[in-house]
Amino acid sequence: MGIVVQKFGGTSVRDKERLFNVARIITETYEQSNSVVAVVSAQGDTTDDLIEKAAEINPSPSKREMDVLLSTGEQISISLLAMAIEAMGYPVKSLTGWQAGFFTDSNCGSARIHRVDTERLENELGKNNIVIVAGFQGINKYDDITTLGRGGSDTSAVAIAAALKADVCQIFTDVDGVYTADPRIVRNAKRLDEITYDEMIELATLGAQVLHNRSVELAKKYNVELEVLSSLERKPGTKVKEVVKVEKMLIKGVAKDDDVCRISAIGVPDVPGMAFKLFSMLAARKINVDIILQSIGRDGTKDISFTVALSQKQLALDALKDICSSMGVQEIVCDDDVSKVSIVGAGMQTNSGVASRMFEALGEANINIQMISTSEIKISVLIERADSKRALSAIHDAFFD
Amino acid sequence: MGIVVQKFGGTSVRDKERLFNVARIITETYEQSNSVVAVVSAQGDTTDDLIEKAAEINPSPSKREMDVLLSTGEQISISLLAMAIEAMGYPVKSLTGWQAGFFTDSNCGSARIHRVDTERLENELGKNNIVIVAGFQGINKYDDITTLGRGGSDTSAVAIAAALKADVCQIFTDVDGVYTADPRIVRNAKRLDEITYDEMIELATLGAQVLHNRSVELAKKYNVELEVLSSLERKPGTKVKEVVKVEKMLIKGVAKDDDVCRISAIGVPDVPGMAFKLFSMLAARKINVDIILQSIGRDGTKDISFTVALSQKQLALDALKDICSSMGVQEIVCDDDVSKVSIVGAGMQTNSGVASRMFEALGEANINIQMISTSEIKISVLIERADSKRALSAIHDAFFD
Repeated sequence: MGIVVQKFGGTSVRDKERLFNVARIITETYEQSNSVVAVVSAQGDTTDDLIEKAAEINPSPSKREMDVLLSTGEQISISLLAMAIEAMGYPVKSLTGWQAGFFTDSNCGSARIHRVDTERLENELGKNNIVIVAGFQGINKYDDITTLGRGGSDTSAVAIAAALKADVCQIFTDVDGVYTADPRIVRNAKRLDEITYDEMIELATLGAQVLHNRSVELAKKYNVELEVLSSLERKPGTKVKEVVKVEKMLIKGVAKDDDVCRISAIGVPDVPGMAFKLFSMLAARKINVDIILQSIGRDGTKDISFTVALSQKQLALDALKDICSSMGVQEIVCDDDVSKVSIVGAGMQTNSGVASRMFEALGEANINIQMISTSEIKISVLIERADSKRALSAIHDAFFD
Repeated sequence: MGIVVQKFGGTSVRDKERLFNVARIITETYEQSNSVVAVVSAQGDTTDDLIEKAAEINPSPSKREMDVLLSTGEQISISLLAMAIEAMGYPVKSLTGWQAGFFTDSNCGSARIHRVDTERLENELGKNNIVIVAGFQGINKYDDITTLGRGGSDTSAVAIAAALKADVCQIFTDVDGVYTADPRIVRNAKRLDEITYDEMIELATLGAQVLHNRSVELAKKYNVELEVLSSLERKPGTKVKEVVKVEKMLIKGVAKDDDVCRISAIGVPDVPGMAFKLFSMLAARKINVDIILQSIGRDGTKDISFTVALSQKQLALDALKDICSSMGVQEIVCDDDVSKVSIVGAGMQTNSGVASRMFEALGEANINIQMISTSEIKISVLIERADSKRALSAIHDAFFD
């Protein structure tokens, strides 16, 4: 009785069986008198195969040509899914990114959506067609093909839902919702019925791979109700929205992120302006710094530690080498062997016991905390990587058992 | 010093080595101060693989969705070829069919080009970019993707050459030009330096697979100079144009076509209007009839024989069954075991000895002629298929030795 946008990832459409499974979900929704727009990713390993094909020809192709190549992956998916739906006897049209009206900036490989021109989409829905849209892609103002980068198809789906003022945007994936922790690691992790946008953004950023934070940010901005659910089981998933029912759970989830390393500048002169010099130089090189910790000065020096993603480690170390001598820093130390474990929940800001309960759980498990970072709705700690799975379970048990 | 359009087929771009070979041909042409537009097909077996993928999902998908799927083949080729040219340090842009301005009718699977809007093409050439265009594809007025069907990329190349008023349209293939007969069958077949459009159209229609006749017809209409040449050897090929130098050769080529069968209606009442009834009924079913032969009436009946492509045989037989009894035809006989052998040359109409020399050659080789058909620039005979290769050589020797 409304407009439903459904998004299916690469594993959900990877072969004939999965394509027909998705076709059944779509046509069942259509049978319930809904207008249905399905956004799909490239099948299974298609994108990786295309990247490999390109690398064989040119190790550093232009991003423009890479996007011409990669966008074929979703174009193959949409046509095959449309054929499956045709085979089931339903009216359907597939649309590529440009056909569906996705206009982006020119930043090939990680373009931002400027607007979705819904004329064609509404036209097809008006003719009672099911519409299958290629996710992850659009065009810039010069008619060049662009792709949206990581999490692009989620973002495509939310953007369409916002533009069409859809009743719900359902993100189908291989798990049946958002959990209080990664169920592969924490056996008694619980599925959440609801979660707020902000909590979901923190969880996404912290390494819960269910939804990409760009898409949740967009959903929050346009107040699109998201639902994360399984493409293989027919049951309600987790709803992501602005306000959720007050629940007993203060904490919505526990997440760990292994893509992190700690860098420390040891013996930084304890004079004003040192932290500014250090971090402005890292920012100029577009290095994203996460947790920052500064020791109290002693003997005229202090230590500054921070974490970066592993992919930016070498960039950060090279940058630091340049300025350390001029700043009088004694030594740069780097530790790859760390993980970040975080708890997220909008309730924690009004409940002072949350942090101490987390630290207590870690202490009882004999896990040492290297760094701490807090925000209004999350607390993150840096610990030794070998302890990370144990830490996740210990914290989870403290809040959810 | 001009505009050169180059077309490369699927085998010419099938792998990394071939892609770089093509990139070298293109950049060498560019280095000679030419504006270069290269039109490419899908790599090797890509199109067949995509057709197989579709068949797995839906044995009779809509032509619209099939075209969405198939057009990805050329899109992959253009991006990979552009990456190869980038790797060689040249400025290059790839364009899909719609980006290159190909507007077609809505006849998905075998669309006709309405026009090529050259604005983007000229813009890129104006910036000194090499332009790589996806052949075989375009869009209709609703922005739906269409494909041009067999020989589509040749047609794309000629259409661009016509729209840009290019100096030449070079069709690169795996042979080095147009031959007086298939060199795989007739060992002493000779490469032609020049051939007229009409002769090339007849040869193309008669089964010489070098160029598709749609593309030659288009080249004739817009007076585009074509050149057929090898992508593997650097030497001049065969020029196809309106007027060619007068040469000693009356005959430009000998071709055989095995995709033919003979159908005979035996004992047709020898009264007026019978041939009309028969062939108008076949025409109504869109069956293309090639050679027609009618015997002289005897005992109040006559026999009418004609040839059709093997793919239309069953359609023709079914159609005949319907009307035979009402027309009083005694019997329908069909022979698959035939081949059509033809000679082509604009000179033959002013030289009466050509036909007899052809028939003499066949007679000396003890090959029986079943049917004969002539036009201003060709003579075709129907013979037993087992004799076809011998016939080709015998006729070739009679004219070219």
